[in-house]
This record gives sequence, C-alpha cells and structure tokens, in this order.
Amino acid sequence: MPIFSESLRTDVLTWLETHVPEARRHHILRVEAMARQLAADHGVDQERAAWAGVLHDLAKCFQPARLLAMARAAGLPLDPVDEANPHLLHAEVGAIVARDRFGVTDSQVLAAIANHTLGRPGMDALSCVVFLADSLEPGRGDSPQLRRLRQLSHQNLVAAVAQTCDESIRKLIDKHRLIHPRTVLTRNWFWQASRQSTLLPSAWLSA
Amino acid sequence: MPIFSESLRTDVLTWLETHVPEARRHHILRVEAMARQLAADHGVDQERAAWAGVLHDLAKCFQPARLLAMARAAGLPLDPVDEANPHLLHAEVGAIVARDRFGVTDSQVLAAIANHTLGRPGMDALSCVVFLADSLEPGRGDSPQLRRLRQLSHQNLVAAVAQTCDESIRKLIDKHRLIHPRTVLTRNWFWQASRQSTLLPSAWLSA
Repeated sequence: MPIFSESLRTDVLTWLETHVPEARRHHILRVEAMARQLAADHGVDQERAAWAGVLHDLAKCFQPARLLAMARAAGLPLDPVDEANPHLLHAEVGAIVARDRFGVTDSQVLAAIANHTLGRPGMDALSCVVFLADSLEPGRGDSPQLRRLRQLSHQNLVAAVAQTCDESIRKLIDKHRLIHPRTVLTRNWFWQASRQSTLLPSAWLSA
Repeated sequence: MPIFSESLRTDVLTWLETHVPEARRHHILRVEAMARQLAADHGVDQERAAWAGVLHDLAKCFQPARLLAMARAAGLPLDPVDEANPHLLHAEVGAIVARDRFGVTDSQVLAAIANHTLGRPGMDALSCVVFLADSLEPGRGDSPQLRRLRQLSHQNLVAAVAQTCDESIRKLIDKHRLIHPRTVLTRNWFWQASRQSTLLPSAWLSA
C-alpha cells in the first residue's frame, strides 16, 4: 500500500469531516498548500510536506483527558505546561493517530506532525516547513508582522523559525499564558543556528 | 562570629572596591536599599534582604572561564545557555564566593544571591525581594514599564516577579539574545502562583 496516495488523502479528509470543524479543515488545506510551496522554495520533498500538512491537526479537537491519556500511554515526556494545557499535546498525539489510524510510517512526516506546534531544537527542514506553514498560512491574518514572517519563510527557513517562535512567545506574554519551555529551546537553537551555520549539519536541508 | 555585622559589611564593600567598578558598587548599594524596603513591605526579614543585596554581585566581573570553572567545580547543572553566556553564572558563583570568602552560611541568603538573575520556580519571598530589587532599583531607568513594575513590587511580590520575567524575556527577544529556560520556568511558576494562591505554601512568605 503506498503511503502517499490520493485515495489515502481522501480517507484522511473524510475522517477529518467528523473529527474537526469545517474552519479547521480549511486551515489544514491551507497548511498543506503552504507547506508544499515552502518545500519547493527550500529543496525539501514536496509530497512529504503536503502530507504532513494534511495530517498535522488530526488530534486538534481531542479532549484534554484523551490527549493526556494517549500521551502517557505512548510514554511521551510531559512537561508541567503540557499538564496545565493538554491541548499542546495535539501535535504529538496527532503523529500517533497518523501512524496508528492511517498507517503512516515515514519518520520525517511523523516528526513534522509532532513538531508543528512547539518545534524542536535541531528539527529537520521538513519539520520547519510544516511548523511555519501552520503558523503563517494566509488564514492566520494579515498583520505587518505576519507578512514579514511569511516573506522571510520563503527566503530563510532557519531565521523564520527563530522569529516565528519569538512572535509566539510575545503573544503568550501579552495574553498572560504559560510559555512551553520547548518553544524557548527551539527558538534558542534556531537563533544560534541562524548565526552559526556550522550548527547545521550538511545533511540538514536534505535530511 | 556574627554573620550579619557592620564590620563584615565593611569587609565586603572593601573587597568589592577591587573586584567591581564604581558604577556597579553604586548599583549594589541601591539593591541593598531597595531589598530592605521591599522586605519591610512584605514582612520579610530586612537584615537578610539587605545582606543578600550587598552580596548579590560578588562575581559580577569574574571572567567567563573562571565562572564556568567554578560552576563546574561546584557541580552546578549547566544549561547550554549558561555555556554560551557564562556571565549568567555570576549569580550562582556569587553565592559560592559569599560562602567561601565571607563565611555566609544562611541558606536563604545564599539562595537569594544564586537566584537573583534567573529566579527559580518556587523561590522564597527573600529571593523574590532580591530578584526584584536587582531588576527594578532606581538606577535601572525610569521608563513607564519600570515605574509600573516598581509600584507592583511594593504591592504584590508574586505578580511582580512574573511580570518582571515577562519584561526580561521581551528585552531578550528584542535584542536577539538567548533566553535562559529557567527565566521561563520562573515566569510560568509565578504566573500560575499569582492566579492560584494554593500553589503558595502557607509558609512561603515567612520561609
């Protein structure tokens, strides 16, 4: 059975009809499109990027107790911020659903799903593409800041991840919300990487 | 030998004359004064607060290699951000100097010195007082933001720590500097505590 097939895409979109609201499905399709475009810009596999885009929000509307139970059952390390805001686990749990419900075995696609909300220090270019598409797809708004980050995302994947994390942290501060430490670790890693290209192994873009 | 004596204060100030520049000594005296005032406002031991203020920057001007070597010798856990910016270790190393050079044994005073830059989740009220005095003493400037935080620090220690961390994180983002994960952990803890008073053990203020 091919992992990346049109019929499986249809299966996923049909499943999403009963698991997330219509507005979220539109977001998912916009992430798919933007991830494909960013992948093209940066020499990343476009099919994998589009796939991770389609699959990234499978667990978006799972209830907190279900997210926590699935994360615990999978042995995921839980931060106190995850326990206070189990919704943050929808990314990691989404990768579990992609694997167990849709038979996705591609480790990079699964990682990109798992990393789409908090990022991860050193995540590969495919994960960066999906992380950025989720944050910056056109439905997210049209502020000067978002326009600037979108432009940057087509030019410099590493700097765009660092600065998208910055925006995310700024918003959390403004809203008095908890900041997940992984967002900060991701942000620090990508800021350092954007200054020190030696931090990026040569295989990073093609990983 | 009394730990908190005028002659020891003189010894410390004399030692500081050859270890930190004059402007830094003025900062230290302002921290001492503000820590004493905040302690009075919040029912915290004023003598300890003043002492921690006088002692907090003993290692401020130590060279990075010396800070790293002393931290490693003491078995302190080092974050990658500490290794990239050893200057951040001056707080923890300052507590070691206070203990080894000046014979300070009071664990709360030593903790307040060690916590004055990054804070610490759940740190006690004495540590909060010194953390806030270091960030907010009059020499730090007179922006509307600082005036607001100063006012808050006299009214609500917990909220003031949370919001002072927010300001610190905002500044690091603006300057494209690394954010130490402990600043974020401290910030999250104090934001949660400011909303859920049950997080604060009854002994917290008098600890």
